[in-house]
Amino acid sequence: MNTIPWQERPEGTQDVIWRYSENPIIQRDAIPSSNSIFNSAVVPFEEGYAGVFRCDNKAVQMNIFAGFSKNGIDWDIEHNPIEFKTGNTQMIDSDYKYDPRVTYIEDRYWITWCNGYHGPTIGIGYTFDFKEFFQCENAFLPFNRNGVLFPEKINGKYAMLSRPSDNGHTPFGDIYVSFSPDMKYWGEHRCVMKASPFEDSAWQCTKIGAGSVPIRTVEGWLMFYHGVINTCNGFRYSMGAAILDENQPDVVKYRTQPYLLSPQTHYECVGDVPNVVFPCASLHSIEEDKVAIYYGAADTVTAMAFGHISEIVKFTKENSL
Amino acid sequence: MNTIPWQERPEGTQDVIWRYSENPIIQRDAIPSSNSIFNSAVVPFEEGYAGVFRCDNKAVQMNIFAGFSKNGIDWDIEHNPIEFKTGNTQMIDSDYKYDPRVTYIEDRYWITWCNGYHGPTIGIGYTFDFKEFFQCENAFLPFNRNGVLFPEKINGKYAMLSRPSDNGHTPFGDIYVSFSPDMKYWGEHRCVMKASPFEDSAWQCTKIGAGSVPIRTVEGWLMFYHGVINTCNGFRYSMGAAILDENQPDVVKYRTQPYLLSPQTHYECVGDVPNVVFPCASLHSIEEDKVAIYYGAADTVTAMAFGHISEIVKFTKENSL
Amino acid sequence: MNTIPWQERPEGTQDVIWRYSENPIIQRDAIPSSNSIFNSAVVPFEEGYAGVFRCDNKAVQMNIFAGFSKNGIDWDIEHNPIEFKTGNTQMIDSDYKYDPRVTYIEDRYWITWCNGYHGPTIGIGYTFDFKEFFQCENAFLPFNRNGVLFPEKINGKYAMLSRPSDNGHTPFGDIYVSFSPDMKYWGEHRCVMKASPFEDSAWQCTKIGAGSVPIRTVEGWLMFYHGVINTCNGFRYSMGAAILDENQPDVVKYRTQPYLLSPQTHYECVGDVPNVVFPCASLHSIEEDKVAIYYGAADTVTAMAFGHISEIVKFTKENSL
Amino acid sequence: MNTIPWQERPEGTQDVIWRYSENPIIQRDAIPSSNSIFNSAVVPFEEGYAGVFRCDNKAVQMNIFAGFSKNGIDWDIEHNPIEFKTGNTQMIDSDYKYDPRVTYIEDRYWITWCNGYHGPTIGIGYTFDFKEFFQCENAFLPFNRNGVLFPEKINGKYAMLSRPSDNGHTPFGDIYVSFSPDMKYWGEHRCVMKASPFEDSAWQCTKIGAGSVPIRTVEGWLMFYHGVINTCNGFRYSMGAAILDENQPDVVKYRTQPYLLSPQTHYECVGDVPNVVFPCASLHSIEEDKVAIYYGAADTVTAMAFGHISEIVKFTKENSL
Amino acid sequence: MNTIPWQERPEGTQDVIWRYSENPIIQRDAIPSSNSIFNSAVVPFEEGYAGVFRCDNKAVQMNIFAGFSKNGIDWDIEHNPIEFKTGNTQMIDSDYKYDPRVTYIEDRYWITWCNGYHGPTIGIGYTFDFKEFFQCENAFLPFNRNGVLFPEKINGKYAMLSRPSDNGHTPFGDIYVSFSPDMKYWGEHRCVMKASPFEDSAWQCTKIGAGSVPIRTVEGWLMFYHGVINTCNGFRYSMGAAILDENQPDVVKYRTQPYLLSPQTHYECVGDVPNVVFPCASLHSIEEDKVAIYYGAADTVTAMAFGHISEIVKFTKENSL
Amino acid sequence: MNTIPWQERPEGTQDVIWRYSENPIIQRDAIPSSNSIFNSAVVPFEEGYAGVFRCDNKAVQMNIFAGFSKNGIDWDIEHNPIEFKTGNTQMIDSDYKYDPRVTYIEDRYWITWCNGYHGPTIGIGYTFDFKEFFQCENAFLPFNRNGVLFPEKINGKYAMLSRPSDNGHTPFGDIYVSFSPDMKYWGEHRCVMKASPFEDSAWQCTKIGAGSVPIRTVEGWLMFYHGVINTCNGFRYSMGAAILDENQPDVVKYRTQPYLLSPQTHYECVGDVPNVVFPCASLHSIEEDKVAIYYGAADTVTAMAFGHISEIVKFTKENSL
Repeated sequence: MNTIPWQERPEGTQDVIWRYSENPIIQRDAIPSSNSIFNSAVVPFEEGYAGVFRCDNKAVQMNIFAGFSKNGIDWDIEHNPIEFKTGNTQMIDSDYKYDPRVTYIEDRYWITWCNGYHGPTIGIGYTFDFKEFFQCENAFLPFNRNGVLFPEKINGKYAMLSRPSDNGHTPFGDIYVSFSPDMKYWGEHRCVMKASPFEDSAWQCTKIGAGSVPIRTVEGWLMFYHGVINTCNGFRYSMGAAILDENQPDVVKYRTQPYLLSPQTHYECVGDVPNVVFPCASLHSIEEDKVAIYYGAADTVTAMAFGHISEIVKFTKENSL
Repeated sequence: MNTIPWQERPEGTQDVIWRYSENPIIQRDAIPSSNSIFNSAVVPFEEGYAGVFRCDNKAVQMNIFAGFSKNGIDWDIEHNPIEFKTGNTQMIDSDYKYDPRVTYIEDRYWITWCNGYHGPTIGIGYTFDFKEFFQCENAFLPFNRNGVLFPEKINGKYAMLSRPSDNGHTPFGDIYVSFSPDMKYWGEHRCVMKASPFEDSAWQCTKIGAGSVPIRTVEGWLMFYHGVINTCNGFRYSMGAAILDENQPDVVKYRTQPYLLSPQTHYECVGDVPNVVFPCASLHSIEEDKVAIYYGAADTVTAMAFGHISEIVKFTKENSL
Repeated sequence: MNTIPWQERPEGTQDVIWRYSENPIIQRDAIPSSNSIFNSAVVPFEEGYAGVFRCDNKAVQMNIFAGFSKNGIDWDIEHNPIEFKTGNTQMIDSDYKYDPRVTYIEDRYWITWCNGYHGPTIGIGYTFDFKEFFQCENAFLPFNRNGVLFPEKINGKYAMLSRPSDNGHTPFGDIYVSFSPDMKYWGEHRCVMKASPFEDSAWQCTKIGAGSVPIRTVEGWLMFYHGVINTCNGFRYSMGAAILDENQPDVVKYRTQPYLLSPQTHYECVGDVPNVVFPCASLHSIEEDKVAIYYGAADTVTAMAFGHISEIVKFTKENSL
Repeated sequence: MNTIPWQERPEGTQDVIWRYSENPIIQRDAIPSSNSIFNSAVVPFEEGYAGVFRCDNKAVQMNIFAGFSKNGIDWDIEHNPIEFKTGNTQMIDSDYKYDPRVTYIEDRYWITWCNGYHGPTIGIGYTFDFKEFFQCENAFLPFNRNGVLFPEKINGKYAMLSRPSDNGHTPFGDIYVSFSPDMKYWGEHRCVMKASPFEDSAWQCTKIGAGSVPIRTVEGWLMFYHGVINTCNGFRYSMGAAILDENQPDVVKYRTQPYLLSPQTHYECVGDVPNVVFPCASLHSIEEDKVAIYYGAADTVTAMAFGHISEIVKFTKENSL
Repeated sequence: MNTIPWQERPEGTQDVIWRYSENPIIQRDAIPSSNSIFNSAVVPFEEGYAGVFRCDNKAVQMNIFAGFSKNGIDWDIEHNPIEFKTGNTQMIDSDYKYDPRVTYIEDRYWITWCNGYHGPTIGIGYTFDFKEFFQCENAFLPFNRNGVLFPEKINGKYAMLSRPSDNGHTPFGDIYVSFSPDMKYWGEHRCVMKASPFEDSAWQCTKIGAGSVPIRTVEGWLMFYHGVINTCNGFRYSMGAAILDENQPDVVKYRTQPYLLSPQTHYECVGDVPNVVFPCASLHSIEEDKVAIYYGAADTVTAMAFGHISEIVKFTKENSL
Repeated sequence: MNTIPWQERPEGTQDVIWRYSENPIIQRDAIPSSNSIFNSAVVPFEEGYAGVFRCDNKAVQMNIFAGFSKNGIDWDIEHNPIEFKTGNTQMIDSDYKYDPRVTYIEDRYWITWCNGYHGPTIGIGYTFDFKEFFQCENAFLPFNRNGVLFPEKINGKYAMLSRPSDNGHTPFGDIYVSFSPDMKYWGEHRCVMKASPFEDSAWQCTKIGAGSVPIRTVEGWLMFYHGVINTCNGFRYSMGAAILDENQPDVVKYRTQPYLLSPQTHYECVGDVPNVVFPCASLHSIEEDKVAIYYGAADTVTAMAFGHISEIVKFTKENSL
C-alpha cells in the first residue's frame, strides 16, 4: 500500500493548504535535456508512484516523459520522451505535448494532455505499465487545453473536463464537461463554471482551467483548478478548489472565492514565466484525510503542497463564491 | 420533380459562375420583424422547396425561420422563428441561432446552425416536414461556426465540416471534418484545408469556412466555401470551390486559387456589413448539369448565382491552389 | 409661432419613424469650406429656427457654425465658425469642437459640444441671440463625449447626460447623468443606462450615447440615443429611444429593444464613415403630437426623420429592453 | 507632538531619497485576510499616526482598512474594512476601494480613493476620529484614478489632483486639477502635467499619477508622483517629484527628469505585480527638514523612504524636465 | 509631341482639382484575369503614352503589367504581367509586385514598386522600350512602401522618396528621401515630412506616402501624396500636394493643410477597399499649365483628375500646414 | 598581447557555455548617473581592452559611453557619454543611442548602435583612439535595430547584419545582411535567418537579432544572437549561435536549435526587464580556443560567459535547426 507523501502543517499557520518545505521537488534541469519540468501528473503505481512529466527541452520544445518514484517526492524521470503506439486510431499526429494529467479507470492508466494538432487540443492515451503507451483520437477539435478525465465513468460514460481556448495566450476561458461512451466520440458538452466577475474574485477573473483529477468526496467531486488574473505585467496563475455534483458534474456545488495558493515564494515568482502556480495532479487518501498536490511553479519547476481533505471541503463550502 | 431555379449565362461573359439578374431575391424586410435576411439554406421539398432562413430582427437578434417556395426564387418565410422540441437531448439552450444549413439524410432533413451556448458552437436539429422541429445535442464545444453536414454517411458515419473559432470576430479559421456514429457524439477530427498564404491566394488568406452542403460529383465532393481577406477597412468575404475525396473528405483534391464570386455589386458591397458574399446552400441537378447557389450579400439580403457543375469542376481542377 | 417641419408617413409603411423623402437636407459642401456637415443641432428661434452645425473643413478640422432657417429644412449656415467670448471663465481652450447640442433654459440658449481640451470633453456655451456666444468651463474632465442638457432644471439643478469615453475610437460607452447648481461645478454623477448584452439587442451592444435634448412627455423624458455594434467591418450606429423618469432621470422607465432607425439608405451607408445614423436634435410639438429628428448620416450629411410622439412613446413602452 | 519616523542617509550614498533599511514595514499577510497590503496612506493622529490601508483579501477583492501606529512604522491594522455611513449623499455605492490618500483640512480627515462605481472613479469620505467614517459623492464620472486632495483650500476652494483613465490597464494618463466649493460639485478642470516624451524621460513616458498629498514649501507645492514606462515585459512604476505653483496648482514650476526611486530591491521587483514603486503618502516636518514617504512595492507590501525636503526641492529645481 | 489628356474645369466649381467626368477610365475587369486595376503609373512614350499597371488577379495576387495608350485615357493593357530579366543583380526575388511608379531619367524608364521580399520593400527596374524589362537590387531593407524616384538626379545622385512601414496594415508612416550614386547602394536617408497632428489636418494624421513622381516647378518639386485618417470604420485615403526644395528635397516648403481630393464619388467610396483615393502618377505640361493625375479608387479601378499647375502651387502655398 | 578574460568550466557541468562566477561584472550604478549598464561592447585595445557601454541614466535616457579595462572584467567607464564629431556627414542627429557593437576593420574601430532618428535605426561611427569619435550617415531608414558589422570586408565590401523592426516593442524580427562599398551607401540586402517555427525551437520563435561581431572560424562566421519567445508574461530573451558561410554570409550553415544560455540566474531574471540575456560582444582567441561573451542581463547589468570555440562550433553543427 502506498503511503501518501506528507508533511504536517507548519506551526503558526492556519492555512488550509501549505507548501512542502523542500520545494521545489523537481528542479528545471533534473534530466540532461530539460529546460524546465513542471505541470506534471502522478498516480499510485505498483509499490510506489508513476508519473507523466512535462519536460521542455533547451529548444523549448514541449514533450511528456514517464517517471517513477518510491515516495512520491524523489523522482526518476526517463531521459527520452514517451513514444506512443497507435491506440484506437492511426492518426496520432502531435506537434507538441504538454500539461499531462493521469488517472486510472477500470483497467488502465489514461493520460490526457494538450496535444499540438493544428493548434492545441486534448490528446488522449493510455498505458497499462508505464512502459508501453498508446495514443487515441484527440477528444476535441482545436483549440482546447486542460483536459482532465474523471477517475470513474459517470452514468456509464467517460467524462472529461476541458477549457476551450484560442490559438494564442487565450485571454478568456471557462471549464466545460463532455462525455463519451468509448473514449473516441465525445458529446453532451456542458458549461461547468466560468471565470468570475472581477469584483467577486479577481484572482480567477480572466480564465480558469481544471487542474488535478477530481477526488470523490462525500460532498461531490473535489477538483483543484487554476484561475488567472490579467495584471498590467501579464497573467498571474493561482489555485482554488471546486466541488462538483457527484452525478451531474456540470453542477458546481461550491467553489472557493479566495485562492488556496497563489504565487508568493521565490520559485513561484521568478522563472521562465513569473507568478505561476499551476496544479496538475494530486495523491490522496480519504482514510487518512490527506491530499498531496503537485503543481508547476513559474513554468519552470515542480512543487508540492499538502492539506486535509475534510478541511479543504469545509473551507470550500464556507468560502464559496 | 423539382425544376432547378435557373437563368442562362449572360451574353458576353465567360465567368464560370454568374449572378441572377433579379438579385437580391429576398429583401432585408421580407418579413415584418426583419432587419436583414441572409446566409440561409434551402432544399427540395415536396413539389417545390423549403428553406431555413436567418432573419435578424430589428433588435439585431439572430434567429432561424422556415420558408417555402414553389420555384426556389420567390419565398414565403414564416413570421415567427422555428421553435424546437427536444430531440436526442433535454439540453436545447440557445442564446441565438444563425447561418443555417439544411440537408436530407436517409429519412429526414437535418439542420445545422451556429448556436449560442456560452458562445458560438454548432447546433443540430431535424425535421420531417418543416412544421415540427427537433433539436439535438450541440456537435462541439464552443467556439465553432459554419457546421455543414455531408448529405450521406461516409464510411457508415455522419460527417460534418466545421470551422473552429474564437469568441469574437475570429481573425483565423480553417476547415475541419468530424465524424459521428449517432449525431450525438463526435470524434475523428481532421484538418481539411487551411487559409492560404497571402502570396498564393489573398482572398482566402485570413480564414475560410464551409458554405453549402457538398455535392457528390465524379471527382469527389464539390463544396462551395467562403474565404476572407483582412483589408485595412475590415474583412472581405468571397466564394471559392473545393473538391474533397469521396471517401476521405479530409483529402482536398482541388481548390480554386481564384475566387468564383467576390463582392462587386451594390447589394454585395453596401449593407450592414459591406463586402460580403457568403454561400450557405445550393440546389443542383447532376442530370441537367446545373447548380443554383444561394448566398448572403452584405449580411443584409439573399442572392443567387448559377453555374454548370461540370464547368465548375473543370475550373476547380485547372485553377487549383 | 413656429410650424414643426413635417412630412406624413409614407403609404405602405407602419414604421414608427420615417425618413424625409428629400434627405439629406444639408449636403456635405453646403458651405464653401466644408468637407461634411452632420451631427448638428437646431432650436426654434424667433420666427423660425436657429442651429449649431458641425462642419468639418477640408483639412478635416472639426468646428461648429451657426445657421438659420425659416422652415427648419432649408438652412443658411454661416461661413465662419462660432467665435466664443469668455463666459463664466477665462479658460476657453478648444483644440476642436464637434457634435453640438442646443437647448433653451430659462433665459438663453445653451450649447454643449465635444470640446478638445487634452482630448475630448464636454464644452458648454450660451447665446441669447445666436450672434454673440459665450464659452463656460468644461463640464467634466476628459475623456467624455455626447453631453446633452435637459431643457429644464431638475430638482433645482441643471442636469446633463454624457458618455465617459477614452482617447480613441472608444469601444465601450454608457450614459450617465450629472447635476450642477450653476453650470460651473458638476457632481452627483449617476449611471443611467448601459450598452446592452449582445443577445438582447445587438445594435446597441458596444456603446450608447445620448442624442437629442430630452422631450418632456406624460411618461417622462423621451430621449433619442445612438447605439453601436462592432461588426467585422467597423462600428455601425443606429438610433433608439428611451424614457427616463421625470424627477430621477437616472431611472430608465423604458428603452427600445429594436432600433428606430438604422443605416439603410445610400446616404447613411456610403460616406466618410459608412453606416452611421447619429441623432443630435429634434423639434417637437406636444400639441400636434409631432417630432422632427435631425441626424447625421455617414458622418457626411444631415438628414431628417419624423414621427408621432405618442406612437414613439407607445412603441418604446411595448418594445422595451 | 509627533516625531517623524526617520532614518539617516546610509553612508556611501549621495541619493536624495533613501530606503528604510527594514523595508518592507508591512508584510502582505499583516492581517489574517490579506493577500497584500500596499498603496496606503497615513497622517499624524493624536499622539501618533493613523492610516488608511489598501488590503486586498485572498479573493483579491480590494478594500480599505483603518490602522494606527505610535511611531509610524509599526502598524496595527483593523481586521475589518472601513464601513462608511452616508455623508453628503445617500449614494455610496462601491464595488471596490483601493489606493487611498488621507489629509486633514480644517476640521476633519478627508479620504480619497479609487472607488468602483461602474468602473474606477474617485471616492471621497471623511472622518473625525478614524472610528466613524462618512462617504460623500464621487468627485468625478468614471474613469479616474489617483485622486489626491491638497491639504488646504486654494483660493477658497477644495482642490484635487486626479488622473483620468479608461476601464482597463490604462496605457495613457496625465495629471489634472479640479476645484470644488463644497466637496460635492467639481469643476474648473485644468491639465497640470503630462507623461513625458520618451526621449526626455522614459521612466514617466507612458503615464503619470499624483502620489502623496502635496507639501507646502517655500517654492510651492511639493508632490511625489509615480511615472510609468511600458517595457516589453509590462509596466514599470517609479517615483519622481514635482513642484506646483502655490496659488495656481496647474502651473508646474519644476519636475524631476530623473526618477527619485525606481524598483531595484527584491521586494519592489518581485511580488504580485513586479517592478512597482507607488507612493501614496508622506509624513513631513518642515522644521526638521524631513519627509518620510510611504509607498507600495510590487503591489504586495508597504515600504518607506526618507529624504530632506530642502534637498529634494533643490534636486527637483536643478534636474527639472 | 504628346497632348496631355485634359478636360476643363466643370462650371460652378472653384475646386483646384477636378475629376474626369467619365471616371473611372479603367474598369476592374479591363483584362480577363483581373479582379481590379488601380494604383498605376504612366509616362509619355513615343507618340502616346505607356504605363505600368497594378492588376490584381482573381486570386488577389498582385502584379504589374505594361500598357499603352494613344490619348492617355483609353488603355490597352497586356494580358500577362511584366517578366523581368536580371538588371544590376542576380537576385530578383519577388513574392508580389504592386503600386508601381514610372519616370524617365537620362536614358531609360525607371520603374519602382512595392516588391515582396520577406515583406514589402521597394523594387527597382528599368526598361528602354516597355518590351524588355530589367530588375535591379531592392533599394531598401523591408519594410517599405511607396518608393518614388525624382525625375532627375539631385546633386549628382538618384533620389527616392519612400515610406518605411511594418509588415501589416501599417498604422503609422512618414515620407523619407534617400540617395544613391548608382541605383544599387542607398544612403543619406532624411525625414521629409510626417503625418500631421490630428488637430491640424486630420485627413493625413495617421500616415502619408509619396504619390506621383515630383514635378519641377519654379517653387520647387511639386509632389502629390496620399494621407490617411483612421476612422472607426477603417482607413480613409485622400490626396494632398507638397512642394519640396529643389536642391534639398528633405525641406518641405509648402504642404496642403486641406486635401485636394477625398473619396466622395461612388467609385471612390464603394469597392474592394472603400474610401480610397490613391495617386500614383501624373502627366503634365508646364507650358500649358496642366496636370493630369492618375489615381486608384477604392483599390478597384483607375480614375483621373485635372488641374492647373500654377493654381495648385498657389493653393499649396496659401493653404500650407 | 591581450589575455582573454577567462574562467574554466565549473565542475559537474557539461554545458558548452558557462557563466562567470562573479557575475554581474558591471553593476547598474557603476557610474554616478546610471540607472543601468548593459548590452555593451568591447574590443582589445592597446595593452588591454576598450569598450562602448550602454548606460541608461536615471531619467532612463539611453546613451553610450567609452570605458577601459586592463583585464576585460574590471571596467572604468567614463562619466560622460561619447560626443561625436561629424564623420562622413553633417547629419549626426541622435535622439538616443543604445545597444552598441564595436569592431576593428583595417585602420580603425567601427561602432554601430541603435540610433534615434525619427525612430530606431542603425547609427555608425568610428574612432582611432577611443578619445575622439566620428559619426557617419545612418546605415538604413528607420526602423531597425541590432546592426552588427563583420570584422572584415567580404568580397571587397563592408557587410552589416541588422534586424528590420517597427516603432514599438516589435513582435517580429529576422536577421538580414547588407553591403556597402564605402560605409555610406548600403544595398544588396539579403535575408539571412528568420525566427523559427514555434514547434521547432520556441525560444527563438518571436524574433531574433544579431548579437556579437561574427568570429571567423574554419566552419564560417560564428555569430552569437538573441532569440525571443513571447510568453503570457512578456518577452524572454535567450542566446544561441549560428555559423554563416564565409563568403556568402546570407547562407546559414548551422544554427542552434537549443539555446546556449537562457535567463536562469537572479540577475538575469530580476531587474528592469525580467528574463533577458542579450549578447552584444565577445573577445576570443582562436589559438587558445576561447571565447568570452559579454551580455546584458535583465536590461540592468552586464555579465559574462565563457566557452571553447571548437566546442561551440561542434555543438552548433550537431544541434542545428
